[in-house]
Amino acid sequence: MTDVGRLLDAIADVGRAPSGGYERFAWTPHDLALREWFAAEAAARGLSVMTDRAGNQWAWWGDPGADGPGVVTGSHLDSVPGGGAFDGPLGVASAFAALDALRADGVQPARPLGIVNFSDEEGARFGLACLGSRAVTGTVGADRLLALRDGAGDSLAGVLARGAGGVRLEQYGRDPEALGRIGVFVELHVEQGRYLADLPSDEAAPVAIGSAIWPHGRWRVDLAGEANHAGTTPLDHRHDPMLDLARLITDVRAAAEHAGALATLAKVQVEPNGVNAIPSRVRAWIDARAETESAVRAVLGHPATADKAAVGRAGAAGLSQWHPVEESWTPATVFDPALAARIADVVGRPGSGLPAPVIGTGAGHDAGILAAAGVPTAMLFVRNPTGVSHSPAEFAEAADCDAGVAALTAVLADLLTEPRGRQNARWSAPRNADHLTSYRPPADGSAAGSGAR
Amino acid sequence: MTDVGRLLDAIADVGRAPSGGYERFAWTPHDLALREWFAAEAAARGLSVMTDRAGNQWAWWGDPGADGPGVVTGSHLDSVPGGGAFDGPLGVASAFAALDALRADGVQPARPLGIVNFSDEEGARFGLACLGSRAVTGTVGADRLLALRDGAGDSLAGVLARGAGGVRLEQYGRDPEALGRIGVFVELHVEQGRYLADLPSDEAAPVAIGSAIWPHGRWRVDLAGEANHAGTTPLDHRHDPMLDLARLITDVRAAAEHAGALATLAKVQVEPNGVNAIPSRVRAWIDARAETESAVRAVLGHPATADKAAVGRAGAAGLSQWHPVEESWTPATVFDPALAARIADVVGRPGSGLPAPVIGTGAGHDAGILAAAGVPTAMLFVRNPTGVSHSPAEFAEAADCDAGVAALTAVLADLLTEPRGRQNARWSAPRNADHLTSYRPPADGSAAGSGAR
Repeated sequence: MTDVGRLLDAIADVGRAPSGGYERFAWTPHDLALREWFAAEAAARGLSVMTDRAGNQWAWWGDPGADGPGVVTGSHLDSVPGGGAFDGPLGVASAFAALDALRADGVQPARPLGIVNFSDEEGARFGLACLGSRAVTGTVGADRLLALRDGAGDSLAGVLARGAGGVRLEQYGRDPEALGRIGVFVELHVEQGRYLADLPSDEAAPVAIGSAIWPHGRWRVDLAGEANHAGTTPLDHRHDPMLDLARLITDVRAAAEHAGALATLAKVQVEPNGVNAIPSRVRAWIDARAETESAVRAVLGHPATADKAAVGRAGAAGLSQWHPVEESWTPATVFDPALAARIADVVGRPGSGLPAPVIGTGAGHDAGILAAAGVPTAMLFVRNPTGVSHSPAEFAEAADCDAGVAALTAVLADLLTEPRGRQNARWSAPRNADHLTSYRPPADGSAAGSGAR
Repeated sequence: MTDVGRLLDAIADVGRAPSGGYERFAWTPHDLALREWFAAEAAARGLSVMTDRAGNQWAWWGDPGADGPGVVTGSHLDSVPGGGAFDGPLGVASAFAALDALRADGVQPARPLGIVNFSDEEGARFGLACLGSRAVTGTVGADRLLALRDGAGDSLAGVLARGAGGVRLEQYGRDPEALGRIGVFVELHVEQGRYLADLPSDEAAPVAIGSAIWPHGRWRVDLAGEANHAGTTPLDHRHDPMLDLARLITDVRAAAEHAGALATLAKVQVEPNGVNAIPSRVRAWIDARAETESAVRAVLGHPATADKAAVGRAGAAGLSQWHPVEESWTPATVFDPALAARIADVVGRPGSGLPAPVIGTGAGHDAGILAAAGVPTAMLFVRNPTGVSHSPAEFAEAADCDAGVAALTAVLADLLTEPRGRQNARWSAPRNADHLTSYRPPADGSAAGSGAR
C-alpha cells in the first residue's frame, strides 16, 4: 500500500454507514475522531497544531509567525450524507504524504508549510457549504453562521458552546491572523467528473490543474396546493401540487439541456407528506451551474442577463413561469492564472510532451472561497475512473493517488524553495513568463470549464 | 352558539398550529388535553368514564355491565397533520349534545348509552389508521401495534410505558369486555366530499346515511438512482430517479382517471434529499380507492382481478410497469343494511318527502373496523359546503351541525327505547320490514358509493 493509501486506510471505518457511504458531519463524534487523527498525524511529524477562530485545523512545519506567510495545502475531512472516501480526505492525506516526500527528498524550505483541515466544507449539517473557510475569511459574518441550525434544531453556537473541537465561542469568526499566515493555497481534490478518465490514451493524464469554479446558484420554487382528503376528493376538484412538481422536474431537465448547463432538482419538501393527504404545498430546490453565468441565467429564464445563444437554446422563458426564488448566487471563481501556469510548469503530463490539462469544475471548494478573498490559490484534480462523487462509489486508483502526491510534492517544493528575498512578492509570479504560452487550454475551449461535463 | 358549537369551541385552541391547522397526534400533550376535556364533559353529565385496554375512552350513561350491551356513539379527537376542526371532534361533540337533548326530551332509555373517543384514528403518529379500534377488536395484534414507531423513533410500547393516558402496557390489546358492551355503534362524521353540498335545492339534505366504505389500498414504489454530484455529473451520465418520479406522478393520475378511481401520490422520501446530490433513491407511496375493488385493481394494473370495463379504461398495464409493492389492502366494508334502513326511517330529509340520502365513502373510519369485526354499525354524514377535509378549511355550517345532532338524537332515542325484551335481538332489525322499501337508494345507483366523487 502506498503512503497516501495507508493514511486513508487508517480512517476508512470512521463514520461509515452500513450502506458503505460516509456520514461525517461537522462536530459530530465522527468528525471529532477525524480531527484527532489529523492532530495525531501532525504530531507524529513534529508539526505544531493549531485551531483558528473558525474551527479549522492547521498543522505547521516551521513557524508561520516568525517566517510566514507560508505555503498551505490540505482540504477537508467531513462528508455529504452517504458520501465517498476521497472527496476531502484525499487532499488532507496527500498533504501529509507530500510533506513526507519533501523531507525524504531533503528539500530545504525557505518558508513554512501548512496543512489545513477546513471544517464543514460540505455544509451537510448546517446547510451552508464551505462554512469553515467562509468563517475564517469573514465572507459570511459570525452572527449569521452561529445562528444556523442543523436538522435537529441545534444551532452552531449551541454546538460550539458545548465544547466541540475546543473552539472558543466568544472568539468565533473571521481570523485575520490565521489568514495572514497563508501566502499561497494549493488544494488537491479527487475529480468529480470524467474529464481525465475520458481523455484518449495518447493524451492520458492522472492529474489536472484547476482553472476556475463555475458560477453556481440555488433557487427555491413553492408549489401551492389545497390540502384535502385523498380518499374522498374527486380528481377534478383537486389542487394537487404534486402534479406541478412532475412538470417542474421535467422542465428543469429540459431547460438544462437547452442551455448547455447542469441543473438539478434533488431536494423536495412535501407538506404534510401523508399517504392520504393531498399536499397543501410542495417546495423544490433547483441547483444550476454552467461554464458561463449567462448559461445559468438562461436556465432560470433571465433573458436580460443571459447571452443570446443560451437563451435561444433554453427558450426565452426558461423556468421563469415557475417563479424561482434565488437562495444563493456564487459568481465564477477564476484561480490565479499565473499561479496555475507556474504549477503546470512543474506538473506536466507524464509520458508525453503535453502540458497538464487545465479544467474548470462545477463543484464548490474552500479554494474558491480563499481565491475570492484574495489569496493566490490553485487546485489539482486527481483522475476519477467513473466520475462518480458524493457516493460510496467515488474512487481513485492507487497509482493516480500517488501521481497526485507526486504532483503536489513538486508544486510545494517549487513554492517552498522560492528564494527568501522574494517572499513578499506575489507567490503566483511565474518563474518564466514564456511558460505561460505552453499550457494554455486548447483553442477550441474544450479544456477550460469542461471537466465537469 | 348552539350546544355542539359550544362544545367544539371549548377545544378550538388545543393543538392548533399557526397555520390554522390542527396537530393533535395520539398521546401527545395536545391529545392528552383532549382526553381530559372528554372526561370532564362526561363527569359534568354524571357519566362513568373508563379507558379500555387499547386506550379508547368510554363514557357511559347507565351501567353497561349490568344492563348492556348498550347503544354506542362517538368518534375520535386526534387529527392528521394540519387537519381540520370537524373530522372526529364533530362526532364526539354531537354525541354529548345528543345525550343532552335526549335528557331534555325526557327519553327513558331501556339500556345504557355509551360515548366513545377512539384513540389514534388518523394514524398520524404511528402510521396505522384506526389504531385504537383495530387494537380493541384484535384486528391487529398487540405485539405488532406496540412495536410501531413514530417519526422520532419512539415505539407505542415506549410511549405507553411512560404512562400516557393511564393505559396499562401489560394489558394492552384486544378487550373482549369493552367490545361486549357495544350492542350497536353509530358514528357521526363530517362529510369529506361534496355529495350533500352538490344536491339540487329541491333534494337538499343536511345529513346522509352511510352505506359502505370503499375498498382501499396503499402501495410503495422504489425508484433506484445513482448518487452523484449535481455540480459535476453530465446530464447524460446521470441516473436520476427524480425523472422517474415525475413520470410516476403523471401515470398515477392518468391511471386513476382511466379506471374511474381515486389514486393519489402524496408522500415521497428522497435519499439523501440534498440540493446538490443526485438522489440514490426516491420512494413514493400511492393511495388508491374506488367504489369497486376491481376499479382499484385496474389502477394498479392487475387485470386478472379487475373487471374488463375498468381494465379497458385504465389500460391493461395500469401502474404495473412501476412494480408497486402492496403495503395494505382493506376490502369494502358494507354497513348493516337493515340498520341503515331503520335509521333512515327516523332521519328522513327535512322539508321534503324524500328519504335521507344513502352514500358510500372513500375514507376509512373506526365504524368500518367495528363493522368488519361483526358489530352492527351505521354512520351519519353532516354536509360539508366545500367538501374539503384534512385541512384547516374543513367546515360545516352551524345549522347543519345542529341537524346532525337532531338526526343522531332521533336515532339514539329509537335504539335506546327498543323494548327491553328485544335487547338481545339483532339491533339492526327494522321495526317494520315495510320501511325497507321506502329508503332504498335511487334505482340509477347515483346515491350508493357516490358520496366521495
